[in-house]
Amino acid sequence: MSLSDNNISWQLAVDCVIFGLDQSTDIRVLLIKRAIPPYQGQWALPGGFVLPNENLDAAAKRELEEETGVKEVFIEQLYTFGEPNRDPRGRVISVAYYALVNLEQHPTQAASDANDAQWFGIHDLPQLAFDHATILDVAIKRLDAKVRYQPIGFELLPPKFTLSELQQLYESILGRKLNRRNFRSKILKMGILEQLERQTNVAHRPAFLYQFNAQKYEELTKQGFEFAISPPKEK
Amino acid sequence: MSLSDNNISWQLAVDCVIFGLDQSTDIRVLLIKRAIPPYQGQWALPGGFVLPNENLDAAAKRELEEETGVKEVFIEQLYTFGEPNRDPRGRVISVAYYALVNLEQHPTQAASDANDAQWFGIHDLPQLAFDHATILDVAIKRLDAKVRYQPIGFELLPPKFTLSELQQLYESILGRKLNRRNFRSKILKMGILEQLERQTNVAHRPAFLYQFNAQKYEELTKQGFEFAISPPKEK
Repeated sequence: MSLSDNNISWQLAVDCVIFGLDQSTDIRVLLIKRAIPPYQGQWALPGGFVLPNENLDAAAKRELEEETGVKEVFIEQLYTFGEPNRDPRGRVISVAYYALVNLEQHPTQAASDANDAQWFGIHDLPQLAFDHATILDVAIKRLDAKVRYQPIGFELLPPKFTLSELQQLYESILGRKLNRRNFRSKILKMGILEQLERQTNVAHRPAFLYQFNAQKYEELTKQGFEFAISPPKEK
Repeated sequence: MSLSDNNISWQLAVDCVIFGLDQSTDIRVLLIKRAIPPYQGQWALPGGFVLPNENLDAAAKRELEEETGVKEVFIEQLYTFGEPNRDPRGRVISVAYYALVNLEQHPTQAASDANDAQWFGIHDLPQLAFDHATILDVAIKRLDAKVRYQPIGFELLPPKFTLSELQQLYESILGRKLNRRNFRSKILKMGILEQLERQTNVAHRPAFLYQFNAQKYEELTKQGFEFAISPPKEK
C-alpha cells in the first residue's frame, strides 16, 4: 500500500519494565502513579511519548529518569504492543523495554507525569493502567528465559559474594528453589567465577567468597550459553 | 510529556524476515524487488504500512502475502527499529517479524508493491533497501539463539525423517558442523522423538526413521529448554 492510504495519527510511546532485586526473596517492579489522564491516579509502568528526533532506547531512558529518578540502567527492548484499542487516546504503539537492577542502588523520586514512584513485589501488584499487566507478563517470561542463556549477577551482587547469595538471586528470578549441588556444579563449570578467601565474622561455618571474572562474564553475555537449572529433587 | 507536544507524523510499518530451508546446506531469506520509491528497483524485506485498525501481527501476515504470495506462516515478533533517519519519507517505525519455513512448501508470487520475490542464500545477498541489512542481522542472531532453547523441525522436515536429516537442519541454521554422537545423544534425551521402522530402498545401511511426538514438542516450545550443542571435536 502507498503512504497516502495511511491517513491516521499514530502516536509512539515507550514503556519500561524495571525489575529490582534486593536481599529479600521477591522480585520487585517499579511503578508510577499517573498524574494525568487517562487512568489518572492509577499505577502504571513508567513511560511516555517518543520525541520527534529521538531514538527509541533514548526515549525509554529519558522517560524512566523523568518519571522515577532512576538512571544509568542497562535497558533492553522487550516487545512492541500495538493492539488498536490499547489506549483510549487513539492508536498509540508502545515499544516496551526491560531491565534488572539492584534496587538499593536506584533510589526513586517521582516527577513529570508521575505523582509517585514505588517498587512493588510482583506477587503483590495494584491494578495497572492500559495493557501494562500484559506487558509485565511478557517481561517476566523474558527474564526467566534470559537467565537460562546469559549470566546474571554482575550488577546485582556485591563485588564479593557467596555461592548461596548467587543461588538466592537465581531463585528470586525463577521463582522456585534450586538444587544446591546442581547449581554449584553448573555455575562453577561456566568459568565466570573466581574463588577468593573465606568469609570472616560469620556465626556459621565461613563459606568461600567469589567474584566474577569480568572478561569471561562479558564473553558469555555476548555469546550466550545453555544452562540447565534443575529444581531440587522431590523427596 | 503530554500528547500535544508530540506534533509529528509517525508512520508505522512492519517488515518480515522469512527464512527458508530446503535440502540444500545454506539457509535462505525471502526478498522482494521494490516497485515503488523510495529504493525503487532495489531488493528489500517484504513489508509495508499497518492499516488504521489492524493489529501488528495481522499487518505482517497481510503484507507478506500481498507482496510474495507466502501465507499460513507462523511469524514471531523480532524487534522494533526506530532510528530517526531510517526512512527518507519521514519518521517510519518498523516492527520486524521473523519466521522459519520449508521453502518448498511456500512458492512465491510477487504482487502489490513488489515486482519480484525470490529466495536468496544469506551468504549471497544483494544490497538491501533502508536498514534492512541490520534487521536481517538481528534476525539471524535471534534464530541462532532460538535453536538453543526451542525444538525446531516440526514444519521443516517430512513426517518421517532420519537423525542425519535433523542434524543437517540444525547445522544449516547454526552455520557449522556438529558432533554427530553428541547431537544424537542430546536430541534423543529431549524426548521429542519417536523411533519408527528403518528406511527402505536406500543404497547405504538403512537408518532408523523418527517422527516428532507432537505433545512433547509443543510442551517444549512453550517451556523452553537448554540444549548445549557442541561443535565436532578438533582433530
